[in-house]
Amino acid sequence: MFKPDRLAAFCDGVIAIAITILVLGIEVPSIHKVPEKELVAYLIDSLPSIQGYVTSFLLVGVFWVQHYAIFHYVKRVDRPFVCLNGLFLLCVSFVPFPTGLQVAYRHDELAFVLYAASLAVCGFALMAIWYYATRKHHLISDFVPNMSIQSMQRRLALTTGLCLLAMPLSLVSLNLTRLILLGIPISYLSDRAVDSGWREATGDSEASQEE
Amino acid sequence: MFKPDRLAAFCDGVIAIAITILVLGIEVPSIHKVPEKELVAYLIDSLPSIQGYVTSFLLVGVFWVQHYAIFHYVKRVDRPFVCLNGLFLLCVSFVPFPTGLQVAYRHDELAFVLYAASLAVCGFALMAIWYYATRKHHLISDFVPNMSIQSMQRRLALTTGLCLLAMPLSLVSLNLTRLILLGIPISYLSDRAVDSGWREATGDSEASQEE
Amino acid sequence: MFKPDRLAAFCDGVIAIAITILVLGIEVPSIHKVPEKELVAYLIDSLPSIQGYVTSFLLVGVFWVQHYAIFHYVKRVDRPFVCLNGLFLLCVSFVPFPTGLQVAYRHDELAFVLYAASLAVCGFALMAIWYYATRKHHLISDFVPNMSIQSMQRRLALTTGLCLLAMPLSLVSLNLTRLILLGIPISYLSDRAVDSGWREATGDSEASQEE
Amino acid sequence: MFKPDRLAAFCDGVIAIAITILVLGIEVPSIHKVPEKELVAYLIDSLPSIQGYVTSFLLVGVFWVQHYAIFHYVKRVDRPFVCLNGLFLLCVSFVPFPTGLQVAYRHDELAFVLYAASLAVCGFALMAIWYYATRKHHLISDFVPNMSIQSMQRRLALTTGLCLLAMPLSLVSLNLTRLILLGIPISYLSDRAVDSGWREATGDSEASQEE
Repeated sequence: MFKPDRLAAFCDGVIAIAITILVLGIEVPSIHKVPEKELVAYLIDSLPSIQGYVTSFLLVGVFWVQHYAIFHYVKRVDRPFVCLNGLFLLCVSFVPFPTGLQVAYRHDELAFVLYAASLAVCGFALMAIWYYATRKHHLISDFVPNMSIQSMQRRLALTTGLCLLAMPLSLVSLNLTRLILLGIPISYLSDRAVDSGWREATGDSEASQEE
Repeated sequence: MFKPDRLAAFCDGVIAIAITILVLGIEVPSIHKVPEKELVAYLIDSLPSIQGYVTSFLLVGVFWVQHYAIFHYVKRVDRPFVCLNGLFLLCVSFVPFPTGLQVAYRHDELAFVLYAASLAVCGFALMAIWYYATRKHHLISDFVPNMSIQSMQRRLALTTGLCLLAMPLSLVSLNLTRLILLGIPISYLSDRAVDSGWREATGDSEASQEE
Repeated sequence: MFKPDRLAAFCDGVIAIAITILVLGIEVPSIHKVPEKELVAYLIDSLPSIQGYVTSFLLVGVFWVQHYAIFHYVKRVDRPFVCLNGLFLLCVSFVPFPTGLQVAYRHDELAFVLYAASLAVCGFALMAIWYYATRKHHLISDFVPNMSIQSMQRRLALTTGLCLLAMPLSLVSLNLTRLILLGIPISYLSDRAVDSGWREATGDSEASQEE
Repeated sequence: MFKPDRLAAFCDGVIAIAITILVLGIEVPSIHKVPEKELVAYLIDSLPSIQGYVTSFLLVGVFWVQHYAIFHYVKRVDRPFVCLNGLFLLCVSFVPFPTGLQVAYRHDELAFVLYAASLAVCGFALMAIWYYATRKHHLISDFVPNMSIQSMQRRLALTTGLCLLAMPLSLVSLNLTRLILLGIPISYLSDRAVDSGWREATGDSEASQEE
C-alpha cells in the first residue's frame, strides 16, 4: 500500500487553495472607471462578503485541522480511502459557491440552508474518512486505543452537528445563526471539555489522563 | 539523474490548483446590485455549471490518482520525462476552459466533443508518460514485472478510451454522454475486474494473486 | 505533539497562493471586444494596480521570510499555536481585498489607512505567534538564547511599527507613504543594524558575535 | 544557514500557481445569458488567448525546470539569496498581466515588446540567482566543476537572449516572433548541442563526457 504522505500533501494543497481563493469572493471595484459609490458606502455593502469570507475560512480551517489530526493516525492508504478523500476535497473546493450565494441572497433563508448543508456535507465526508480508516483498525496502528477513536468521532460529529443545527435555526433568525456558525471554530479553541480528541491526537497523554 | 520527488510535488501542486479553481467557473451574483433572478431560478440555471464542476473535478482527480500510481514506480527522472510531465500539466491546467465552454454552449455537440477531446488528450499524455518510463525499464526498477506495466497501461487506456468514446456518443445524446463521463470515476471505484493495476501499484500482492 | 512540518507546509501553501493571486487584481481588457483605450493610456491607468501588486507582494514576501525564520526555531506545535497560525493566514489571505480598495480609491486616505492597518494586523499575528512559541521556551529548544528571541521580536516589531506609522503619515502625503511601505522590504535587505535576528536564525553565529 | 528545501518548496508553490492561473486569462461566456456568438466564432476569437496561454505556460515551465536544476546544486541559502528568489517570483507571478495585454492588444507591437521584456526579466533574475549562488562557490559544493557552472550560465543566457531578441523582431513580424517565443521550449527539448547544462545538472556524467 501507498504511504499516506503524498496523499496528505495533495489534500493540503487543495484545502490551502480553496481557503485562499475565498477572498476572490469579495469584489473590488474596477480601476478603469470612477467608483460609483463612496468608500464608506462600499465598505458597508462589502460587510456580508467579509463576514462570509471569515466564516468559511475559519470553518474550512477547522476541517483542515481535523484532517491533519486524522492523518496523524493513518499509517497506510488504500483505494477506497483515496476516493473518500477525493469526495471530501470535492466538497471543500465547492464551498466558495454557497458562500457567495448566501452573501448575494443574504435575506433568503434557503441560501443559508444550502450554505450550512454544504459545510455539513464536508463534515460527513470527514466522518466517513475516519470511520473507514479506523474500522477494525484497518488503516491505523493496532496500538491506537478505542477511546481515542471515539473521541475523534465525537469531535467530528460535533462540528457536523452544529452545521446541521444551523439549518433549521436559520428559519428563526439568520443573523443569530451566522453567529453560531462563527462560533464553531471559537468553541473548538476554547471548550476544554471536548478537547480530548486533539490532545490524544498530539500524543499529549498526560493532559488527557487528567480528564 | 534527479530524484522524482520535487517533480512529483510540482505536478501535485499544479493539479491541485487546476482542480480547485474549477469552482471559479460557477458564477456568483454580485453583491453590489439586487440579484436579477430569484434564488431558485438562479440555482436551476447554475445546475449545468455544477455538473461541469463535478465531472471535471472527478476526472482530473482520476488523472491525479493515476499520476500518483505512476510515480510510485518511477525511481529517477530525465529531461524528456520532465517535458512529458510538462505537457500533461499543460493539458490538465487547460481543462477549466473547455469545461466552461460546454456549460455555456450546453446544447452544442461541438462544445462537448471539444471537452471530451481535451480530457482524452490528458489521458494520452499520461499514457505517453507511462510508456516512456517503462520502455526497457528505463526509469523504473528492474524488479517491476511486465504484468504490472501492462496492467497500468490497460487502466490508462480504459480512461482515455471512454473519453474518446464520449465524442461520437454525444452526437446521439448529450445528456446520456454526460452521465457516461461521470461514470468513469465511478467505474474506477467499483469495477473490481480492471483493478489489478492499482492493487499492484499499491504492492498489495495477495489481493492481485486472487484474480 | 505534532511535528511542525505539515503545519509549515500548509502555511507556505496558503501564503504562496495569496501572494500569487495578487496579480489577478491587475485587470486585463476582454479580448471579445475592441479595447476602449489605447495601450499606453491603459498602461498609465494600470500603474496604481501594478504598484499595489508590487508593494503587497514584497510585504507578504517579508512576512513569509519571517514565518520561515520562526519555524526554523519551532520544534513542536500545540493547538493554540495552530490557531494563531490560522489567524495569521486569515489576515494574509485577506490582503488582496484592501490592496484592491486602495488602488480603486487611490486618492482616499481612508482606503490607504485600511490597507496599512491590514498589513499591521498580519505583523501583530506574527508577533503573537513568536511570543506564544517562545514564552518559557514553550515550543522551542531550551538552547535558544534569550538574545535571539528578543532580536526576532525587534525585527517583527519594526515591520509592524512601520505599517502602523504609515497610517497617520498617509494623511500628510499618500504618495510619500506608498514609498515608505515599499521601503520596508528594502530596509529588510539593506539595513545591517537590525539584521541579527535573521543571522542567528540562520545559525550564522560568527556574524552575530560581531555585534 | 537554512537548508534550501523549504525555500525550494515555496518557490515551486508560487510557480505552480502562476502557471495554472494563466488559464483564467481565457474568457468563458457567462451561463446566465444566451451567448452572443456562435461557438465556432467564439473559438476563433479565443485563439490568441489560447496561444498566449500555451506560450506563457511553456516558458514559465522552462523557467521552473531551470530553477529546479539550480536548486539541485544549491546546498545552503542566505538572506540575499532568498531576496533574489523573491524577485524572481515577483517577476514570474506578474507574467499573466503582460500575457493578457499582448492578447487584448494583439496587433500592437508595444504590447508584445512588454511581454517579451517581462519574460526576459524572469530570465535575468534566474541568471542573478545562479551568479550569486556560484560566485566563489558561495552556496554550492566545492566539488562542482567550473565547466558545469558555465554550462548552466550559457543555458540561462540563451533563454534570456531569445526573449530579448524577440523584442526588436516583433517590429518586423508579430506572428513570426510569437513562433520564435514558442520555439524556446522546443529548442530546449530537441537541441542536443546546448544540452550539457541539464545533463550535468542531472549528474549523468557519461552523457556529458561524450561531448
